[in-house]
Amino acid sequence: MSISPFDHPFLSGLIGDDEAARWFSAENDVIAMLSFESALAEAQASEKIIENSAAEAIKLACSTFSPDVAALRAAVALDGVVVPELIRQLHETVPHEHRAALHFGATSQDVIDTSLMIRLKPVLRHIDAGMSDILVELDRLDNAFGDSGLTGYTRMQAAIEITVHDRIEAWRGPLLRNCQKLNVLKQDFPVVQFGGAAGTLDKLRDKGPAVRKRMADILGLKDVPQWQNQRDIVAQFTDFLSQISGSLGKIGQDIALLAQAGNEISLSGGGKSSAMPHKHNPVLAELLVALARFNATQVSAMHHALIHEQERSGAAWTLEWMILPGMVTATVASVRTAASLLGSVMKIGLDITTKT
Amino acid sequence: MSISPFDHPFLSGLIGDDEAARWFSAENDVIAMLSFESALAEAQASEKIIENSAAEAIKLACSTFSPDVAALRAAVALDGVVVPELIRQLHETVPHEHRAALHFGATSQDVIDTSLMIRLKPVLRHIDAGMSDILVELDRLDNAFGDSGLTGYTRMQAAIEITVHDRIEAWRGPLLRNCQKLNVLKQDFPVVQFGGAAGTLDKLRDKGPAVRKRMADILGLKDVPQWQNQRDIVAQFTDFLSQISGSLGKIGQDIALLAQAGNEISLSGGGKSSAMPHKHNPVLAELLVALARFNATQVSAMHHALIHEQERSGAAWTLEWMILPGMVTATVASVRTAASLLGSVMKIGLDITTKT
Amino acid sequence: MSISPFDHPFLSGLIGDDEAARWFSAENDVIAMLSFESALAEAQASEKIIENSAAEAIKLACSTFSPDVAALRAAVALDGVVVPELIRQLHETVPHEHRAALHFGATSQDVIDTSLMIRLKPVLRHIDAGMSDILVELDRLDNAFGDSGLTGYTRMQAAIEITVHDRIEAWRGPLLRNCQKLNVLKQDFPVVQFGGAAGTLDKLRDKGPAVRKRMADILGLKDVPQWQNQRDIVAQFTDFLSQISGSLGKIGQDIALLAQAGNEISLSGGGKSSAMPHKHNPVLAELLVALARFNATQVSAMHHALIHEQERSGAAWTLEWMILPGMVTATVASVRTAASLLGSVMKIGLDITTKT
Amino acid sequence: MSISPFDHPFLSGLIGDDEAARWFSAENDVIAMLSFESALAEAQASEKIIENSAAEAIKLACSTFSPDVAALRAAVALDGVVVPELIRQLHETVPHEHRAALHFGATSQDVIDTSLMIRLKPVLRHIDAGMSDILVELDRLDNAFGDSGLTGYTRMQAAIEITVHDRIEAWRGPLLRNCQKLNVLKQDFPVVQFGGAAGTLDKLRDKGPAVRKRMADILGLKDVPQWQNQRDIVAQFTDFLSQISGSLGKIGQDIALLAQAGNEISLSGGGKSSAMPHKHNPVLAELLVALARFNATQVSAMHHALIHEQERSGAAWTLEWMILPGMVTATVASVRTAASLLGSVMKIGLDITTKT
Repeated sequence: MSISPFDHPFLSGLIGDDEAARWFSAENDVIAMLSFESALAEAQASEKIIENSAAEAIKLACSTFSPDVAALRAAVALDGVVVPELIRQLHETVPHEHRAALHFGATSQDVIDTSLMIRLKPVLRHIDAGMSDILVELDRLDNAFGDSGLTGYTRMQAAIEITVHDRIEAWRGPLLRNCQKLNVLKQDFPVVQFGGAAGTLDKLRDKGPAVRKRMADILGLKDVPQWQNQRDIVAQFTDFLSQISGSLGKIGQDIALLAQAGNEISLSGGGKSSAMPHKHNPVLAELLVALARFNATQVSAMHHALIHEQERSGAAWTLEWMILPGMVTATVASVRTAASLLGSVMKIGLDITTKT
Repeated sequence: MSISPFDHPFLSGLIGDDEAARWFSAENDVIAMLSFESALAEAQASEKIIENSAAEAIKLACSTFSPDVAALRAAVALDGVVVPELIRQLHETVPHEHRAALHFGATSQDVIDTSLMIRLKPVLRHIDAGMSDILVELDRLDNAFGDSGLTGYTRMQAAIEITVHDRIEAWRGPLLRNCQKLNVLKQDFPVVQFGGAAGTLDKLRDKGPAVRKRMADILGLKDVPQWQNQRDIVAQFTDFLSQISGSLGKIGQDIALLAQAGNEISLSGGGKSSAMPHKHNPVLAELLVALARFNATQVSAMHHALIHEQERSGAAWTLEWMILPGMVTATVASVRTAASLLGSVMKIGLDITTKT
Repeated sequence: MSISPFDHPFLSGLIGDDEAARWFSAENDVIAMLSFESALAEAQASEKIIENSAAEAIKLACSTFSPDVAALRAAVALDGVVVPELIRQLHETVPHEHRAALHFGATSQDVIDTSLMIRLKPVLRHIDAGMSDILVELDRLDNAFGDSGLTGYTRMQAAIEITVHDRIEAWRGPLLRNCQKLNVLKQDFPVVQFGGAAGTLDKLRDKGPAVRKRMADILGLKDVPQWQNQRDIVAQFTDFLSQISGSLGKIGQDIALLAQAGNEISLSGGGKSSAMPHKHNPVLAELLVALARFNATQVSAMHHALIHEQERSGAAWTLEWMILPGMVTATVASVRTAASLLGSVMKIGLDITTKT
Repeated sequence: MSISPFDHPFLSGLIGDDEAARWFSAENDVIAMLSFESALAEAQASEKIIENSAAEAIKLACSTFSPDVAALRAAVALDGVVVPELIRQLHETVPHEHRAALHFGATSQDVIDTSLMIRLKPVLRHIDAGMSDILVELDRLDNAFGDSGLTGYTRMQAAIEITVHDRIEAWRGPLLRNCQKLNVLKQDFPVVQFGGAAGTLDKLRDKGPAVRKRMADILGLKDVPQWQNQRDIVAQFTDFLSQISGSLGKIGQDIALLAQAGNEISLSGGGKSSAMPHKHNPVLAELLVALARFNATQVSAMHHALIHEQERSGAAWTLEWMILPGMVTATVASVRTAASLLGSVMKIGLDITTKT
C-alpha cells in the first residue's frame, strides 16, 4: 500500500527511509509487543506473582508466535486496538495451565505504548549518528571554505559580505543545541509504560512498581510511573523531532537560495527535469524545506493530543498513532538528506575574482 | 511498509480504507500517468502536432508498459520526481521513429498533477455515495426516535430537554451544506494540468489550448488553463475534505458523550478491552474525532503550500504529496465510519420512564 | 493594550488595519449586540409576542445605552460570556413594565454570533473592493510590461524565459477564483443566529422562524435556521480568508525573490535598515508571506472548532473568538498590502539589453 | 483596540492577563529597547569603543526619552521594523557630538530580539510562581479527597473505580516535569541578541564578544553568540509554553467531564447563563481547553519560522511577532485559570453513600 509517501514503492526513495520503514513495520510492532508480554511474565515470576513455569511457557510462546494478520486487522476495526485479538491468538499457543498468567494485570495501552518506546530506541541512536554526520560535513566545509566571502542577505536583500564560516555557524548552532538536548533526553527516555486497566496496577497490589522496574530493565527502557494519560512524554519527543527538521529546513532553504543565485555554490549530482535536460534542480535542499514544514504542521496535532481525557482517550491516542511515526520518519529522512546535501557541496563562497 | 496507519497491515482496518489504498497505490499512479501520456499523444495527433502512427505507437506502449519500480525509486531519490525515469523506461518500449513524439511539450508536473486528478474522480463519487449513506441513517434515526426527548447540553451542562430530532438537525445541517458544496465542486473539478516546462506550453505554439481541451475530454477531466503554481485548486479541495471530517467529528464527539452518560444511547457492536471484558468502547465515535483532528491539522500544510514560489516549487509541491493522500483517506475513512456508527445506533433518546 | 500586533500602537501600522480595528472594537461589538436586542424586540412585536410599547421602549433603551465596561469585564471572567451582564445593565434602563420583554427567548450565543455576523458585512465589502484594487494593479502591470521577458524559475532554478504576462496570469488566476467564491459566498452569508437556550426557540413556540426571518431582514443578514453548534458556517468563511492571503502570499514570495535577484523588478519606497542605509528591503513582499503563513496556521484551529460538542461548546466557541478576528484582520491587511506592493512596482521584466 | 481577545476591553477579563498586557505593552517595549541602547553604550564605553561621556549622554537620553508613537507607527509601515525611526527620534535628543556613538554597531534585530528577551524575564518568574500555586491546590485536593473513590474512565466509558489521588497524580506528573524543564530552561534563557548588520559584529572588530558579555550582565540576560537566524532559541521556549497549557488543558477537559457527569465534583462560583439562570457552567474548565488548543495551533507557526532564510528573514521573523506574545499570554492565562479552577473545587470524588 502507498497512501503515505513514506510507504510508497517509489516516492519513499526520496521522502521515506529504509530504517524507519523497518522500525515501524507491523512485524516489528508485533515483535515489540511480544517482548512486552515476555518481559511482563519474566518480571512477574521474579516477583512471585506467577510461577516460573508459567513465565517460561509464555516466553517460549512469544518467541515462536506468528500472528494471523488478517484477523488482527479485522479485530482492530472492531476494538480500536490490536491487543485483545493479539492476546487471544497468543493465548491459544500457551499451555492451558499457564494461560491465566499471560498479560496478567496489563492493558492494551501498556503493550502499545511500550512497543512504541522499544522501537524508539534505535531511532535515537540513528538520529544521534546522523547529526554527527552532518556536523562532520559542516566541519569539512568550514575547513575548506570558511574564509571565503559570502554575500550576507538580510530581508531578501544583499547586505554586507560575510564569510562562509559565519553562515556555517548559523547552521551549526541549532544542531549543537539539539545534540545537547538529545543527550538530556536520553537520560529519561524512552520509558516503559505499565499501568493496568486504569493506570493503577490494581491487580498487582504492592508489587506493581517492582514488576515495572524489572520490565524496564529487561526491555532496556527507563522506569517511570505509568503515563498513559500524561502525553507530554511523547509530545516533548516530537517537539525535539520538529526542532531538528526545522533547523535542517533552514539549511535547505539557504542552499536553495544559493543555488538560485548561482555563483556562490556548486553542488554535485542533483535532480533531472523531464522537460529541460540542462537543469540541475537542488532537490535535496527543497526536500529539507518540505520535511521541515511537514513536521511543523504535524507537531500541532501532538500538542492537541495532550488534551487526553480521563484515564485513557481513544480519540487523542489514535491521533498520535496517525502522527508520530510520520514525524520520526520525516526527521530521519531530513537528517539523512542534510548529510547527503552537505556532502554534495563542492564549493561554497565567492570566487576571489568575483569579489573584485 | 507501514509507517502510516493508512498503509499498515492491521491498523488500516480501523484507520485506513481499502478503496483509498487502491486509488493511491503506486500501480494506480503509474496507470494514471500512462493514461496522461496516452491522451497527450492522441490529442497531439488530432491537432496534427505528431503523426497518427506515433500516437498509436505511444498508446500501445502505454497500454502494455510495466515499470521497473526499483529503478523508479532510485531515480526519485535523485530527481525529486518520478517522471524523467518513467519516461526514460517508457521511451525504450516505443519504436525508435516515434520516440521524439513521446511526452512532447509536457513536463513532470503535468503528468503528476494530472495523475492525481484522474485518481480524485472516484474519490468524489465515493464521498458522494458515502454522504448519502450517512443521510439515510440520519433519516432512519429521525423517523424512529425523532420525537424522543434528549437532554440538551450547553457548555458541558445539562440545559433543557430537546428532542432527538433537534440533535439530528444539528448533525444534518453541515452534511447537507457539504453535499451542496460537492455539487458545486464537481462542476469545475477535477481538472487537467498541462503547461509544459514553465507553464506556457511554449513548444505547442498556438495549439496548446486545443490539445489541453482534447486531453481533458479523453481523461474525463475539466479543462482549465495550467495551474501548476496556482495551488488554490488543490487547497480548496482539501478544505472541503476537512469540512466533512470535521462535521462528522462533531457527531463522533456527541455520540461518545452520549455513550459516556450511558442512558440515552444504545450501540450494537463496539470495542473490546483486553483488561475489562465487560466494557464496550465507542471506538467508531472516538475514531471520528481523531480523523477530524487529523485533517484539521493537515489542512494547515495545504494552506502553507499556497505559497508556491515562481513557476514551480519543489518544496511546496512535495509538501502536498505528503499531505493530500492522507487527507483523502482520512475523509473517506471518516465517511465510512460515520455511516457504520450511525447504523449501529439501536436506540437514542430518553426512555419515557426516565422522563417522569 | 498591545499583546497582538493587530492591536499594537506602532506594529499595527504594518501588520494591522484601521478598519478592522474599528469593526472588532468593543464599542462596535456592543453596538451590534444592542442592534440584535433591538431587532429582536421589533420582530417579536410584529409577531405579537411582545407589545409594541415594549418594543419601542427596548429600542429606545438600546439606542441610548452605554455600558459599564469594567463591570462587563469582571462578569466575562465569571460567566465566560458578556451577555448576561450586558442584559442585566440594559435591563435597568428599560421601564419596569417592559423588562420581561427584553432578550425574550434568546440566549448569549444568539447575541454574540449575530453580532459577529453584523460586523462581517463590511468585511466582505472591504475585501471585495480590495481585490478589485489588486486586479487593477495587475492589469496595469500586464498592460505596461506584459510582453517583457522574465526568467521562469522552476524548483529554484532558472528554467526558460517566460513573459511578465505569464507570471501575472499565475498571480491573477487564484484571485479571480476567489472573487468568484466571494460572489457565491455573499448569496448565503453573513447569516443571523437565533436559537434560544438550546437551539430550539422553545419559548417562541411556532413563531420562531417568523421572528428570525424578520430579524434577519432588519439586520441585513441572511435568514437560516440556527447553527449555533454547526460551525461549518464560520469555518468555511475562514477557509476563504486563508485562501486569499495564501494566494497573495505567493505574490509576495515571488516579488521578494525578484527583489533578491535584483535585475528584473524595481520597487518604489521600501524599508529602511537601521544598520545599512543603502538597503531597500521589500518589506511589503515579506509581510504578505508572513500574513499568509499566519492564516495558514490559524485556519487549523477553526477546523478543530468544528468539533463543537452537544448544543453549545464553551471550549470550541471560545477558541473561535481567539482566532477569527485575527484571521479577518490578517486578510484585510494582506489585501491592502498586496495592492500597495503591486502599486509600487515601477518596472518588472528583463530589460531589452539584458535579453541580448 | 481589541481585535485580539487578549487586548479586548471586556474579553480580556476571561482570556487575557493583566500582567501579560503590561509586559507586551508598547510602552514596555520602548523601555526595553532603550535599555538595550543604554546597555550598549555603557558596554562600549567599558571596552573603550566609545567615550565615557558619550555613554553618559546616551544613557541620560534613554532615561528621559519619550517617543512620538504616531511617527513610529507610520515608520513601521514603511520599514517593517520600528528601530530606524526610534533611533532617529532618540538621536535628536543626544548632543551632537555623541550622536555617532548611539546604536553603534547594532542593527534592528539586536534591539527587537533583546527587548523581547528582557520582557520574558518576568514571564518565567510568573509562570514559575503560577505553577507552584497549581501544585499547592493539587496537594490540597489530594490531602482532602485523595482517598475518595472516583470512577475511572477509559475511552469515554466507566472502567473501574480509582482514587482521587490516582487522577491527581495524572494531573501532577506533567506539571512536575514542566517545572523541571523550567529549571533547566532558566539556566540558559533568556539571552541577549547582539550581532550587528549581518550577525558578525563587524564594526566592533575583536571586541564584539566582550561588549556582548557586558551587555548581557547589565541587562540580566544570558550571554550567547548571536542567534538572529537561529530561531530554535525562541521556538523551544514556545514548545515549553504549549506543553504547559496542553497539560492544563487535560485538567480542564477532565473537570468539564466531571462537571457534566455531575455527582463527583462540586465547584464554587461558575458561569451564569443569560437564558437559564439555574445553570452553573464550568467556564474555567472549558477555557483551559480553549487555551490549550490555541497554543497547540500557534506552536506550528513557530516551527515554520525555524526556516529563517539567510542572515535575517523578514517573513519568518514577522510571523514570530504575530504568534509569540499571544502564546505567552495564553499560557499565563492558563496557569492563572488552572489555579483558580482547582481552588474552586469544593469536593471531588464519590460520596461513600454513592459507592455502595
